[in-house]
Amino acid sequence: MEYPQERFLATTFIPGSFWARRREVVRAQTLRHQLLMLKQTGRYEAFKLQWHPSYAEPPTVYPIPNHQFWDSDVAKWIEGACYLLVDQFDEEIDAAVRELVQMIRGAQHPDGYLNIHYSVVEPGKRFTNLRDMHELYNAGHLIEGALAHHLFYKNDEMLAPILKYVDLLAAELGAQEGQIPGYPGHPEIELALLRLHRLTGDPKHLRLARFFIEERGNPHGGKEKRHYYDVEAEARGESEHDLPMYFPAARSYWYQQAHVPIADQETIEGHSVRAMYLLTAVADLVRIFKPDSELGAKFLPALHRLWSNMVEKKAYVTGGIGAMKKWEGFGGDYFLPQGTDEGGCYAETCAAIGVMMLAERLLQFELKGEYADMMELCLYNAVLTGMSLDGKAFTYVNQLASSDQDLSQRHEWFECACCPPNVTRTLGFLGGYIWSHSMQDDFVVVNVHLYTSASLNLQTAESTVQITQTTDWPWDGDVTFDVKTEGPQIKLELRLRIAGWAASWQITPRPDNLDIRDGYVYLDPAWVQAHAQFRFSCPMQPRVVRPHPLTMQPVAYVMRGPIVYCVEDVDHPWEKNHFKRTIFDSSVPLREETRSEPDSYVALIAEKGVYGDLDTSEWEDRIVAESGGAIAGEPKDLCFIPYYLRANRGGRGQMRVGLRLAF
Amino acid sequence: MEYPQERFLATTFIPGSFWARRREVVRAQTLRHQLLMLKQTGRYEAFKLQWHPSYAEPPTVYPIPNHQFWDSDVAKWIEGACYLLVDQFDEEIDAAVRELVQMIRGAQHPDGYLNIHYSVVEPGKRFTNLRDMHELYNAGHLIEGALAHHLFYKNDEMLAPILKYVDLLAAELGAQEGQIPGYPGHPEIELALLRLHRLTGDPKHLRLARFFIEERGNPHGGKEKRHYYDVEAEARGESEHDLPMYFPAARSYWYQQAHVPIADQETIEGHSVRAMYLLTAVADLVRIFKPDSELGAKFLPALHRLWSNMVEKKAYVTGGIGAMKKWEGFGGDYFLPQGTDEGGCYAETCAAIGVMMLAERLLQFELKGEYADMMELCLYNAVLTGMSLDGKAFTYVNQLASSDQDLSQRHEWFECACCPPNVTRTLGFLGGYIWSHSMQDDFVVVNVHLYTSASLNLQTAESTVQITQTTDWPWDGDVTFDVKTEGPQIKLELRLRIAGWAASWQITPRPDNLDIRDGYVYLDPAWVQAHAQFRFSCPMQPRVVRPHPLTMQPVAYVMRGPIVYCVEDVDHPWEKNHFKRTIFDSSVPLREETRSEPDSYVALIAEKGVYGDLDTSEWEDRIVAESGGAIAGEPKDLCFIPYYLRANRGGRGQMRVGLRLAF
Repeated sequence: MEYPQERFLATTFIPGSFWARRREVVRAQTLRHQLLMLKQTGRYEAFKLQWHPSYAEPPTVYPIPNHQFWDSDVAKWIEGACYLLVDQFDEEIDAAVRELVQMIRGAQHPDGYLNIHYSVVEPGKRFTNLRDMHELYNAGHLIEGALAHHLFYKNDEMLAPILKYVDLLAAELGAQEGQIPGYPGHPEIELALLRLHRLTGDPKHLRLARFFIEERGNPHGGKEKRHYYDVEAEARGESEHDLPMYFPAARSYWYQQAHVPIADQETIEGHSVRAMYLLTAVADLVRIFKPDSELGAKFLPALHRLWSNMVEKKAYVTGGIGAMKKWEGFGGDYFLPQGTDEGGCYAETCAAIGVMMLAERLLQFELKGEYADMMELCLYNAVLTGMSLDGKAFTYVNQLASSDQDLSQRHEWFECACCPPNVTRTLGFLGGYIWSHSMQDDFVVVNVHLYTSASLNLQTAESTVQITQTTDWPWDGDVTFDVKTEGPQIKLELRLRIAGWAASWQITPRPDNLDIRDGYVYLDPAWVQAHAQFRFSCPMQPRVVRPHPLTMQPVAYVMRGPIVYCVEDVDHPWEKNHFKRTIFDSSVPLREETRSEPDSYVALIAEKGVYGDLDTSEWEDRIVAESGGAIAGEPKDLCFIPYYLRANRGGRGQMRVGLRLAF
Repeated sequence: MEYPQERFLATTFIPGSFWARRREVVRAQTLRHQLLMLKQTGRYEAFKLQWHPSYAEPPTVYPIPNHQFWDSDVAKWIEGACYLLVDQFDEEIDAAVRELVQMIRGAQHPDGYLNIHYSVVEPGKRFTNLRDMHELYNAGHLIEGALAHHLFYKNDEMLAPILKYVDLLAAELGAQEGQIPGYPGHPEIELALLRLHRLTGDPKHLRLARFFIEERGNPHGGKEKRHYYDVEAEARGESEHDLPMYFPAARSYWYQQAHVPIADQETIEGHSVRAMYLLTAVADLVRIFKPDSELGAKFLPALHRLWSNMVEKKAYVTGGIGAMKKWEGFGGDYFLPQGTDEGGCYAETCAAIGVMMLAERLLQFELKGEYADMMELCLYNAVLTGMSLDGKAFTYVNQLASSDQDLSQRHEWFECACCPPNVTRTLGFLGGYIWSHSMQDDFVVVNVHLYTSASLNLQTAESTVQITQTTDWPWDGDVTFDVKTEGPQIKLELRLRIAGWAASWQITPRPDNLDIRDGYVYLDPAWVQAHAQFRFSCPMQPRVVRPHPLTMQPVAYVMRGPIVYCVEDVDHPWEKNHFKRTIFDSSVPLREETRSEPDSYVALIAEKGVYGDLDTSEWEDRIVAESGGAIAGEPKDLCFIPYYLRANRGGRGQMRVGLRLAF
């Protein structure tokens, strides 16, 4: 099972558990709320191809029309809805999906073309600006929506028109004579085509995805032997100084990871969501061709290199990526300020979702705990923080510290609304991230990446296997496993991830020999057969961690298990400076306090954790001072709450993750 | 005497002293070297208005043609040459000035217009792009060149054509019907016109400067009641997305300090040289109209506000300003990384020269040590570092730390060559910065801002006064003053600056009452009359200082007197990482070592000053670690040298000012 979007069907979350509750909110509240937003903003009916007044608005992010992504907003909502309909049928949601699909079908041109903007606003301009416009990105999301629709409805109502559209794309784009030798500025269709290919087996789906990936960044592309984006811009009659808002200089193709061919990219650059979607597709392509193929040898080193550069030098403690607002992406190595007033911090929700996607793919090549650690880190922090507890408010940017310019707060929707439905669909198929498995005859391997109360139900030719884990993760590190099989005996190997943050762990009863490889403990079939029930324990204690010293951040972060903590003004009414001047005494013990409001969680209390406030009076009217800075004010208590819980309990939007240490 | 460019005539530097030696290098070497550069690059003959092949080159900084500043390069060289000819006549330099002036005269259009680019490359386009082009900036430097020429040659050979050009400008630009209601993107002409007005008394010179200053940033300017740069861009038929390379977004008029009227600007923003030249002119205008006038009440608060914002939140320890390369200017408050690989650092030489100009003007309103401190800091560090000891190599950007991308090194010239001749002219009239004075009948006040071996010669109606200071500043803080008067007795009040960095100071013999105000000690006429010779001592000890804690820089700087120190790889052959991982033990004593090669200076030796090297292995493959970072390697000695001396003694261009502290 290569894709979590299919694999999730085998997972059942145990009602009342952490993720079951979040998913239930999404199913019962978020889907409806987002449907309302689609309707209120004009997106819902946009595939009717009528004019909408907003189409005339000037672009917020020049040159991209504000409605450019509407196709994908609808497609991602359909996708998320179809995953969640599996849990429980919902008439209202089902009716909306059906109506949307009919509108999509109705919007298709006779030749298969399917796009709102290029049908209504700029007809005749299709495929003329692959660099900036989201035409192929939208197509990718339509494919993913159609795949989810096909999965749930088991019919071709949505898939058929999409296949027809893909036929057109495969005919129009590519390396053949007469084809457009271009590729999308915003990757997405690549991974969608590869998923589609898995369903259809149609070689042209694979061929088109491969072309997009291999041609990307080619300085000598097409007949003209030039960079396609140059050729295309020239054909549009554009001055190279007509700069898209996200280009700091002319031809900043690194923004789209198209400055050089992917295999030659040394560092991870540019728009972080694009980078993640692209590398996910590259990983899928490598998997299809096999890592030891020529194609694998070409791309696998780049995947590892770019992943390492990201994790070691360009990722935040929350798993968020991207420091730079201008291009919604990566800054230089170790440039990781916490917020706007310190130089930036972006960490878009979608980007962290992309990190999960890429980590999941890399786990398929190598079962290494570091990938799953990153997947878990993103899930519980940079992704989960993107949605409110009530499922009706979202973040796009996830800074580590608020400022007067950028408060810590959520919004019910965005003009560019990629993040909200992305969280919806991710939680929809979350089961697919918990574990992965392979089956060969009577030999079943299950890799447990994440811990939560859930069951995995597998069916071999003659037997069924049910693996249930029961836990209060992420608050408690005890996990009970129950394995049930029916039918002829199978061989089940279980591989359990040992979190990188775990100070200790154990399995009870204890296996005689612990076979540990790269952050996973391997439990062989004999042991599993002999222990239908066992416990995996991984005690969680609060810990104080520090960013890489080259980030120049003299701060500490508080974590517990996979959870990154923050402080909010709602718990500290005295705070007025976004905790920017709060000096943290990291030697103070962090007392755990289990709370049930507004949701169950473990707060961490540091009595007299505020050492004092930074007193900068010595620097008045001068650049430097001979002191390192005085500390004023009395010690005060600090209350740390999970970062994902921020902006759920009132307050003035003041929040900080990394607190300053005295130095 | 309002201007240091006139005031310097009263100062004689004592041969062999610190500044006398630097100025002698400029006179004997730099002027010739720069003349050679002017000739080699085509600038020297450019006023002949022949085509030069470089005119066809694409702009390095779109949309500014690379030769756009050539007029000013020539004018600034003439200006500097005329100041230095005062010291010693030089036939070769004199001949070049004469020839250049003849070429300038020959380049003037019958109507007075005078500009290389708009005569040769884009005739007919004059005054169509005041925002981006340096047409009026060039005119400003031509005025300043002409004033210096007039001062030395005491004829109108250069002034006459410039006055004719200014007549044209005054006719074409302004608020009257039929005039262009615009103002220059790069301020300079404002301060030049005010200086010109002082010579000519011509009200239209004052009027034009005032119009440029008061109209700047007017959102409802001209007949169209719109921002002039919008009107102008529209007239050019430009898309607002045709972005100059220095604009991060459309209409980034803060780059030119034209986003709102000057009086309404809350923080110092944009291109730092422009900001300094502009505010210098604003200060001059306020002085002319008097601080307590309506105009003074309008602009003086802005001057103070913007100065404070700059010094407290946007200046480097060297006095350098501007963290951002893209717009060669200011970043957000406290955003002051040391180098390219840490997020940026610009600190252009010209900007620090601009800070000196502005500080000198503010001292005229209020005799406050903090202004002179900043003036001295810039002079000995951010400005002086801009030229090599041999006077033939220069810097443009003055980072606090080198990186592989940006080594610490000098160049013999630049495509945009504003900085080299700016240093030349600044050192040319340096005497004007040392002290300022006022005379009323027989009452003379002399404010001593800077200490160096030099004499000030003043002439009242009937008497002459000579004040001589003798000192080895900046290496030694003892200054001997000798006052000589001839003719009828005058009343001489002396005000000596007490450096903000001075831990102690004394005057010998000690006055009975010390009258200290705002960082100056006032010596009344009776005391001065009774003490024709006295000593001012201000002991210099090495000191370790720290940047404002909100800069998030966990580093310390080493200073001694006004000198900021750095470390260079030439003294530490083991260094390979630009001292980025060097942990400084700031508790180690700094031993002074007086050296005479390649010039006399005090080096500071910290035995075992390297505590160790930062060991970041705990962060391999992960974002955070539970430790604060290990320290590896053995303690090593450190040798600090003056920042201005860097890149003079060989080495690999590795240099750092702020060294990391263990934390």
